[in-house]
Amino acid sequence: MPPPIVVTTAFEARAACTAARNEGQRVGLVPTMGALHDGHVALVREAARHADFVVCSIFVNPTQFGPHEDLARYPRDLEGDVRKLEGVAVVFAPQVTAMYPVGDETRVDVGRLAEHLCGPFRPGHFAGVATVVTKLFAVVGPCTAVFGEKDFQQLAIVRRVATDLLLPVNVVGHPIVREADGLAMSSRNAYLTPVDRPKALALSRGLFEARRAFDDGERRAGVLRALVHTLVARVASSVDYVTVADAEALVPLADDATVTTRVVIAVACRVGTTRLLDNIVLA
Amino acid sequence: MPPPIVVTTAFEARAACTAARNEGQRVGLVPTMGALHDGHVALVREAARHADFVVCSIFVNPTQFGPHEDLARYPRDLEGDVRKLEGVAVVFAPQVTAMYPVGDETRVDVGRLAEHLCGPFRPGHFAGVATVVTKLFAVVGPCTAVFGEKDFQQLAIVRRVATDLLLPVNVVGHPIVREADGLAMSSRNAYLTPVDRPKALALSRGLFEARRAFDDGERRAGVLRALVHTLVARVASSVDYVTVADAEALVPLADDATVTTRVVIAVACRVGTTRLLDNIVLA
Repeated sequence: MPPPIVVTTAFEARAACTAARNEGQRVGLVPTMGALHDGHVALVREAARHADFVVCSIFVNPTQFGPHEDLARYPRDLEGDVRKLEGVAVVFAPQVTAMYPVGDETRVDVGRLAEHLCGPFRPGHFAGVATVVTKLFAVVGPCTAVFGEKDFQQLAIVRRVATDLLLPVNVVGHPIVREADGLAMSSRNAYLTPVDRPKALALSRGLFEARRAFDDGERRAGVLRALVHTLVARVASSVDYVTVADAEALVPLADDATVTTRVVIAVACRVGTTRLLDNIVLA
Repeated sequence: MPPPIVVTTAFEARAACTAARNEGQRVGLVPTMGALHDGHVALVREAARHADFVVCSIFVNPTQFGPHEDLARYPRDLEGDVRKLEGVAVVFAPQVTAMYPVGDETRVDVGRLAEHLCGPFRPGHFAGVATVVTKLFAVVGPCTAVFGEKDFQQLAIVRRVATDLLLPVNVVGHPIVREADGLAMSSRNAYLTPVDRPKALALSRGLFEARRAFDDGERRAGVLRALVHTLVARVASSVDYVTVADAEALVPLADDATVTTRVVIAVACRVGTTRLLDNIVLA
């Protein structure tokens, strides 16, 4: 398999994808911010199951970072990333100006799905995500796009945007890929110090405990939530949320509610200075 | 030329356009709300200059109407409309649920361009326009889309959205088509009573006077504005605005400013109960 072609302009990316489509190939897209790990590689493999011509975008999207977030220090390693992208036809690695033309004003807003979970902690984040993903879809024109379930709310929002904007793309979620010890893979794990790294296990351990309890018949939202929260609170420098929410609408369940539909338990917390996410779906 | 095929689902519209594209035809789009008049017919003719396969959408888009606006009584006549659409391959006349799927949450927001002119008088209007146009583009996939310059701000916003979202569509503006006496054609002219109709001429007369003054060398924004405002205020039941604005950014010029760039003089007022728009570009 030849190495991917790396393009930096929307024009080149669109031309390559149009050519592939005109040859009858199905185009797949894996949008990433780079700093690729085995989780991303799994997304690429999933895309290849749905598409003949896989595009991986690598773009650290400024509009999804808040003013005090880690945009500047977000890990970047294009050369290393490209080496990991076996089976990818095109790597689309645009500059900011290629994605946000001079005078840019347009944002895609996702309404209520952005109000829950990470929404209140990251104002504007999901509008930034929805906007850049809409643009990537417009450039690449994928029939399938693959997103990781680790960013559960992002996946739900991208599905909503694709449905609502009548975009002809099948949005596919891929299960969380975990390290051997359970930690959900994330580019931000690179920030974890040797002291933080073992603490970070509390997220997956708490979620696995909640799943065990659920499998044993526990349906009280507050009890399931507390199983996760107790473990996480013990190690986290701060907890943004531990929430049991409806897996479709993302509306949180009250602690005294009973789980009757498919739910997600989602965690966001800081271990040291590193913000970590994890979640588990119970159904 | 065969009469247009009328389709009501995004699926059918997309299939027809994809088939045309696959045969190497260029697809053009004229988005309308129906109640077609000679202005619309001119847009269709313009689209046919850029495209081999012209689609006309007819959709009274609820999200661009405010709660106290004329959504319910907006004129509707699909059969009559279709008869006027000679040279159109497909009429896309969707139901509301075809354009706004169950659970719809997504809006395309256009930032500062929506803050001026009609924006403050029609909160949410331009987000509704930008959203539905983005959807129509997603369904039809036009290489060219034609909009009338009568809705000058709408045209500027659609251009901005297409540029910002990296949509592969050429947005073409078509000059205002006027009745013999100067009144800008509009579906809402049908609301004008016999008493209102002659009054409505004040808009175009005022704008033509301003153009004459501009052509004679007048560059004081306030003087140009007053020429229009005086005539309009005499007949209007209310004046939303008479504004001299930069033709690109739509930022209003102060009355004591001098016109040095391309500007638009835009009017919105009510004659009787009918809200009318008109504008003229000076350069």
